[in-house]
Amino acid sequence: MRNCLVAQSGGPTAVINSSAIGVLQGAMESKYYNNVFGGLNGIEGILNRNIINLSEALGDKDKHFKYTPSSGLGSCRYKMKNFQVDNSEYNKFFNILKEYDIQTFFYIGGNDSMDTVAKLSEYAKLNSLNSQIIGIPKTIDNDLTCTDHTPGFGSAAKLISTVILETYLDSSVYKNNGIFIIETMGRDTGWLAASACLARINEKAVADFIYIPEISFEKEKFLNDIDRKFKSQNQVYIVVSEGIKYSDGTFVAETNSSVKHDKFGHAQLGGVTNVLKQMIINNGITTRVKTLELGVIQRCAMHCSSNIDIEEAYRCGMDAVKFSMEGVTGKMVSIERLSNEPYTSHSILVNVSDVANNIKYFPKELVKDDNNISDKALEYFSPLVQGYPSFALDNSTKNYTIIKKC
Amino acid sequence: MRNCLVAQSGGPTAVINSSAIGVLQGAMESKYYNNVFGGLNGIEGILNRNIINLSEALGDKDKHFKYTPSSGLGSCRYKMKNFQVDNSEYNKFFNILKEYDIQTFFYIGGNDSMDTVAKLSEYAKLNSLNSQIIGIPKTIDNDLTCTDHTPGFGSAAKLISTVILETYLDSSVYKNNGIFIIETMGRDTGWLAASACLARINEKAVADFIYIPEISFEKEKFLNDIDRKFKSQNQVYIVVSEGIKYSDGTFVAETNSSVKHDKFGHAQLGGVTNVLKQMIINNGITTRVKTLELGVIQRCAMHCSSNIDIEEAYRCGMDAVKFSMEGVTGKMVSIERLSNEPYTSHSILVNVSDVANNIKYFPKELVKDDNNISDKALEYFSPLVQGYPSFALDNSTKNYTIIKKC
Repeated sequence: MRNCLVAQSGGPTAVINSSAIGVLQGAMESKYYNNVFGGLNGIEGILNRNIINLSEALGDKDKHFKYTPSSGLGSCRYKMKNFQVDNSEYNKFFNILKEYDIQTFFYIGGNDSMDTVAKLSEYAKLNSLNSQIIGIPKTIDNDLTCTDHTPGFGSAAKLISTVILETYLDSSVYKNNGIFIIETMGRDTGWLAASACLARINEKAVADFIYIPEISFEKEKFLNDIDRKFKSQNQVYIVVSEGIKYSDGTFVAETNSSVKHDKFGHAQLGGVTNVLKQMIINNGITTRVKTLELGVIQRCAMHCSSNIDIEEAYRCGMDAVKFSMEGVTGKMVSIERLSNEPYTSHSILVNVSDVANNIKYFPKELVKDDNNISDKALEYFSPLVQGYPSFALDNSTKNYTIIKKC
Repeated sequence: MRNCLVAQSGGPTAVINSSAIGVLQGAMESKYYNNVFGGLNGIEGILNRNIINLSEALGDKDKHFKYTPSSGLGSCRYKMKNFQVDNSEYNKFFNILKEYDIQTFFYIGGNDSMDTVAKLSEYAKLNSLNSQIIGIPKTIDNDLTCTDHTPGFGSAAKLISTVILETYLDSSVYKNNGIFIIETMGRDTGWLAASACLARINEKAVADFIYIPEISFEKEKFLNDIDRKFKSQNQVYIVVSEGIKYSDGTFVAETNSSVKHDKFGHAQLGGVTNVLKQMIINNGITTRVKTLELGVIQRCAMHCSSNIDIEEAYRCGMDAVKFSMEGVTGKMVSIERLSNEPYTSHSILVNVSDVANNIKYFPKELVKDDNNISDKALEYFSPLVQGYPSFALDNSTKNYTIIKKC
């Protein structure tokens, strides 16, 4: 008996279930594994033996589940202690694997989850345990190193750029249009905000300014830029990443309200639009300032997803199974881009320890005037948002499938 | 020479341009009119002679414009004085019609715009002017009387219910899920919030509570309901309309911040989610409360539009032209529902004075327990959100077409 286990961790994406189905179908087709188990609520649930038989739980709904957004197996934000300090959870975890005849654990997540994969695989190695631990990338933030991009990012970028285009049209209808500020997620990186450059009319980007965390925010330059633009065209469209900071490292959002931190020490951001709005009003530029925080829509909008993204997420799951059959452990499946026209990519393996707890920033050479994104970035972004999933569009929401939690 | 003029007014919708194209194509096909002019920025722009030749402005892009969201001709919120008080604008307006050989003016808008249509047509009648003034309905709020529903509503309801389903999935992933509060538009009516009942998984609505302005908000009952539900299922999903009020008529949002009023005296709402969030936290139910104000996405999301809605908006424009050929004036084209399965509807004419400044409220008999919507409402809502526009999905955003303003 040889089984495998798949679980999800961290923030949801529109396509994280596509990766889980990739694992399920890869394992079933290969016949290498007898059963595919699903761990509910990530490593935290697994440690509590919240484990289901995934094929049985889904029945004939696996295709529907592939197109259901958000972490259908549940999620957690659980940081394992270093095993040098306390190995009790590690013993418990590997005993559970043994109990369920689980050879391989596939963990779908971002940099924090890859930290878990790194720790578990290192522990297994040091203790001569036969178990394999493999990471599958997932994050809308696109901030994982050692991969061209992350599953989940393309769909988020598509939703963001689509909504930006539509709200730009919405905010342009009156004779006296004001200033519109839209806030994206992205934590310490500007990938999501930068993808706003995809929103174009007649080849021209609609966003007048895009502010990202990689470029220190300068209040005076900001106000001068906005003032000049507003005077010249009577309306300004601003995109801002939640994580923009002053040169001293303080979050701009932090000046608004107390910023909480999660278990991994990351600031829980949000609210930067209101800080910018107040700056603009206080500076006397105009009082006609509207704001929109896109919020969690960014990470669950299957209805505006990228088919490339869905299929890459699925392939990462499938290929993780293939790699596991070669005895791989301590690795993350990563996406290597092979060509742009036509767009092609394939899976490669990278050391999960190189990914864990690292951050990939948006390249500064693709920033323009410290307040916008160069058109050169389109080459990177464009292929990732292509295609609509026809299956999902066919009364998509009616097909969303949930797994009953323990 | 016999021309016509079309203009848009009030808040944008995803499908308001479909109605304008209906007028354009109806006029061109009938050959009844020589030219179709477009008034930019509604009646306000027309009074300033901001008038373009619509066929020439669009060239071969009329099909693209049909699927471009938001008021492509520009909009205004302009209240005409009563002509008994001051008829100077009326004289100016009808002189402009004469100057351009305009026989018929089609005005696409909501109840305030129908007020303009009523005044203009009454003035023309009293002064024996030959001009025809015809209203074409438009509003996401669905608050117009004398019509089964309004063009724009179906697409807004589709976006709202889709996002509610997806954010419900997003907010259900952790072991300790909190309370999620989503705010819809709708001014004094609950149609948009009520459409949340379309968001369902396994036939069950995902929203635990839906609060609409038609039902007086009772803080104590609200807190009891939330507390009980949170204790029983460890998560609560709440939908709230921006315009909910206490029994004394005060807006719940008003307790948060000063509510501004627009030129028509309507309160400019928004921010009710934070008031409810603070109530929940102050009451000690939980501190894990997330909020999302959908904002203007609701009224411009062509990417999640209803094909039924687009085609009905288009037909209202087409039929307005047909009716005009019979000499009609002072009327609004309205939608009469003929059957639900299959869904069919057709255009009828109603007196615009019956529509102007009136409000159609959500029927109380479709409210359940004062805090949710009865499943019986599905019969009304379901047909209105059906179908995706295949043209729009084929790289939709690349096809969005704008008209250069004067």
